Amino acid sequence: MKFICEKDKILKALNSVVKAVASKTTMPVLEGILIQTNEKEIKFTTYDLEIGIEYVMEATIEEQGNTVVNAIMFSEIIRKLPDSEIKIELNENNLLVIECEGSLYKLATMNPDEFPELPTITVENSITIEQNLLKNMIRKTIFAVSIEENRPIFTGCLFQTIGNKLNVVAVDGFRLAWNSTNINETSNNFSAVIPGKTLNEVNKIILDSFDPIRIGVSKNQALFEMDNCKIVTRLLDGEFLNYTNVIPEKWETRIRINKNNLQDCFERISLISASSTEKEKKYPVKILIDIGKITISCTNQTGDAKEQLYVSTEGKNLEVGFNPKYFLDALKVIEDEEIYVDFGSNISPCVIRPIDEGEYTYMILPIRLKD
Amino acid sequence: MKFICEKDKILKALNSVVKAVASKTTMPVLEGILIQTNEKEIKFTTYDLEIGIEYVMEATIEEQGNTVVNAIMFSEIIRKLPDSEIKIELNENNLLVIECEGSLYKLATMNPDEFPELPTITVENSITIEQNLLKNMIRKTIFAVSIEENRPIFTGCLFQTIGNKLNVVAVDGFRLAWNSTNINETSNNFSAVIPGKTLNEVNKIILDSFDPIRIGVSKNQALFEMDNCKIVTRLLDGEFLNYTNVIPEKWETRIRINKNNLQDCFERISLISASSTEKEKKYPVKILIDIGKITISCTNQTGDAKEQLYVSTEGKNLEVGFNPKYFLDALKVIEDEEIYVDFGSNISPCVIRPIDEGEYTYMILPIRLKD
Repeated sequence: MKFICEKDKILKALNSVVKAVASKTTMPVLEGILIQTNEKEIKFTTYDLEIGIEYVMEATIEEQGNTVVNAIMFSEIIRKLPDSEIKIELNENNLLVIECEGSLYKLATMNPDEFPELPTITVENSITIEQNLLKNMIRKTIFAVSIEENRPIFTGCLFQTIGNKLNVVAVDGFRLAWNSTNINETSNNFSAVIPGKTLNEVNKIILDSFDPIRIGVSKNQALFEMDNCKIVTRLLDGEFLNYTNVIPEKWETRIRINKNNLQDCFERISLISASSTEKEKKYPVKILIDIGKITISCTNQTGDAKEQLYVSTEGKNLEVGFNPKYFLDALKVIEDEEIYVDFGSNISPCVIRPIDEGEYTYMILPIRLKD
Repeated sequence: MKFICEKDKILKALNSVVKAVASKTTMPVLEGILIQTNEKEIKFTTYDLEIGIEYVMEATIEEQGNTVVNAIMFSEIIRKLPDSEIKIELNENNLLVIECEGSLYKLATMNPDEFPELPTITVENSITIEQNLLKNMIRKTIFAVSIEENRPIFTGCLFQTIGNKLNVVAVDGFRLAWNSTNINETSNNFSAVIPGKTLNEVNKIILDSFDPIRIGVSKNQALFEMDNCKIVTRLLDGEFLNYTNVIPEKWETRIRINKNNLQDCFERISLISASSTEKEKKYPVKILIDIGKITISCTNQTGDAKEQLYVSTEGKNLEVGFNPKYFLDALKVIEDEEIYVDFGSNISPCVIRPIDEGEYTYMILPIRLKD
C-alpha cells in the first residue's frame, strides 16, 4: 500500500473516523483505523462494535493494499505534520511509513483481516435533511436522554417520521424534550430509537451547514450518510413512550417570559440549591406565580435565595416545586427570546414552548414541596 | 455591616482574592472571605496559611462591620448577578443579605474573629517592576520548579537582585530556567525563594499591563503589592543552587535554528517517545548533529520517528540523548524566532538561548543513550 495525499484532506477524514474508535477494549484492533485503498480512493473505517464510521477520500494511489494502524497515534502524527504533501506506505516489515518534508515516522500495524466487518444495512426507509437542522434537533433533545441503564430504550432518542414531519424525542422519567421539523420528501412513516452515544458522535461529525445528510433505518440499524462519510449504528430495542399522550393539552397557569432572564435566575438559584450537602439530591426550588409576577426561591443550610421577575401571567395563581437543573437544561438550548411556561396543578408537569416556534416542546415533572 | 457597590468592581476584587482560598481544609473559616469595612472602603482578605491576599475597594459604606462568608458561594453569586448596583448587608441573624434588582440571597456567615491574621511583613528590600514583565519572568521559569517535595527549596523560584538586575531562576535537578531583567531602581541585593504555588497565583492575578508591582521581601516573607491588592507569602528555607556556576561557559557544538520548526519536530516526536509503555519514563530522543543538519530520532515498541532539519551548525559533530519534554517546555515559552542550542559533550548539559535576547538561559541535562 502506498499513497500520497494532502495533509488537510487526510486530517479531515481522520477527525471524522476517530469518533468511533474503541477505548479500553480487549480487542486492540478496534483501537485502530482500517485503511483500504482501491485504484483512486482510500477508505478509512473505525468500529467500536456499536458505531461504525467509514470515510472515503480521493488520493494518488501508487500501490493498493490494506492495513490497520493505531488511530490515536496515526491521527495525532498527521495533525502535527506541516501543511504539506504526505507520503504513506506500508513497508515490507509491515510498518506504516509516513513521510512529510523532513519528518519520517514508522508505526506498527495490525492485521486488517482481524478488523470486524461493519454490519451491512438494507435501508428500508430514509429521509434527507440539512446537517445544521439535524445538529439543532440533536442538541435540543439529547440532554434529556436517560443515563440509567435499567431501561435501555430511554438512553436513546426516538426518531419518528409521521407524514412530512420528523420528530426527535428524548425522555428520562423526569422530563421530556421533543423537537419536530418539516421534511420535504414523504417517506413511509418509521420509528427508530438511536443510542444517545451515537448521536453525540454524529453531532460532532456533522457540520453547521446546509449540506444534506441522509438518515436511513432498517430493522436493527440506522445509517447516517454524508458526502464522504457514512455512520452506522445499532438501534435500541423496546417500546418507546407514547410521547404525544403525556403532554398536557391544557394549562391552568401560563407565564410569558424572557428566556434569558429566567435562565439567569435559575443559574443563580442553582448555586444555592446545588450546594445542599443533604442526601436528597433533587433539592427543589419553589416557583410561586402571582398576578404579573413569578418568585423562585430555595432555602437550605447554605442560605436562602429568592428571585423575582415581573412577567405576563394568565390563569390561576400557583405554588409548585421543580428541580432547577431540568429548567436550565432546556433554557440553555432554546434560542428564542420569549417562551411560554404552562402549568397545571402543583402535581402536574409544566411545559416550556418558545413563543415564535411551535417545533419545540419540553415537559418537566414537578417535585412535591415539603412544608 | 451594610454597603452598596457596583457588580463589576466587587467581582474584580473577588476574582483576585479567591486565589488564596483554602480548599479541603479542616478550618472552614479558611474557605471564607473576611470582609471588613471602614468608613469608605471594603477590605477583602483570604488566607490559606501559605498565601494571603488583601484587596481594598471603595464603596458606599452605610454601616461598618466585619464578617466571613464562604468564598466560592459568595463570588459565584456575585458573578451571576446582573451588571448593576448590589446592596450587601449583614442582618441581625448573621446572614449576609445580597440584593440586586429582583434577586435576594442570604448566606450563612462565620465569625470574623476566627479568621487568622495575615503575617505582618517588615519589608527590608523591595523593587518595583511592570506587571507584564513579572508575568513574563514567571512564565519563563516556573515550569522548571521541582515537583519533588524531598528538596523543598527547589519547589520555588529564586528571586535575586544583583545591582540593577533581577534574576528569576528555577531548577529541578534535570534542567534550569533563568530569566533576568534590568530594574530601574537600585536596591540592596537580596535573594528570596518564593514557592511555585504562590507564583502561579500571583501570575493569575497580575495583568499583562505596564502597571507597577512592588516585590518586597523580609527574612521569611515576601509581599507583592499592586494598586488595590496585596499578596503575602512565606519564603522557602534553605540553600538554593549557585546557578551561575553550573551553566557551561563554552560550547563544542552550536546550532542556530528556527524556534518554531524545532518545537514542531519535538511535538511530533514526543508522540512516539511518550507512547512508550515501558517503565523507563524518560525515554530519550537521540539528537545527531552533522554539518548543516540536525536529526532527532526515537525508537520504541510503538514505532520509529526521525526528524531532519537543515540548520546552521558550528563546531563538532555530536550524538546526544535528551528528554524531549524538557526541550518542549522551554520552546513553548520562548517568543523569539531564532535560538542558539549549545552543546558540550554527550554527557554535558545543553543550553538554549534566544539569539536576540540575552535575558533568558535554559539548560538541560542529557540522558545517556543505551546502545
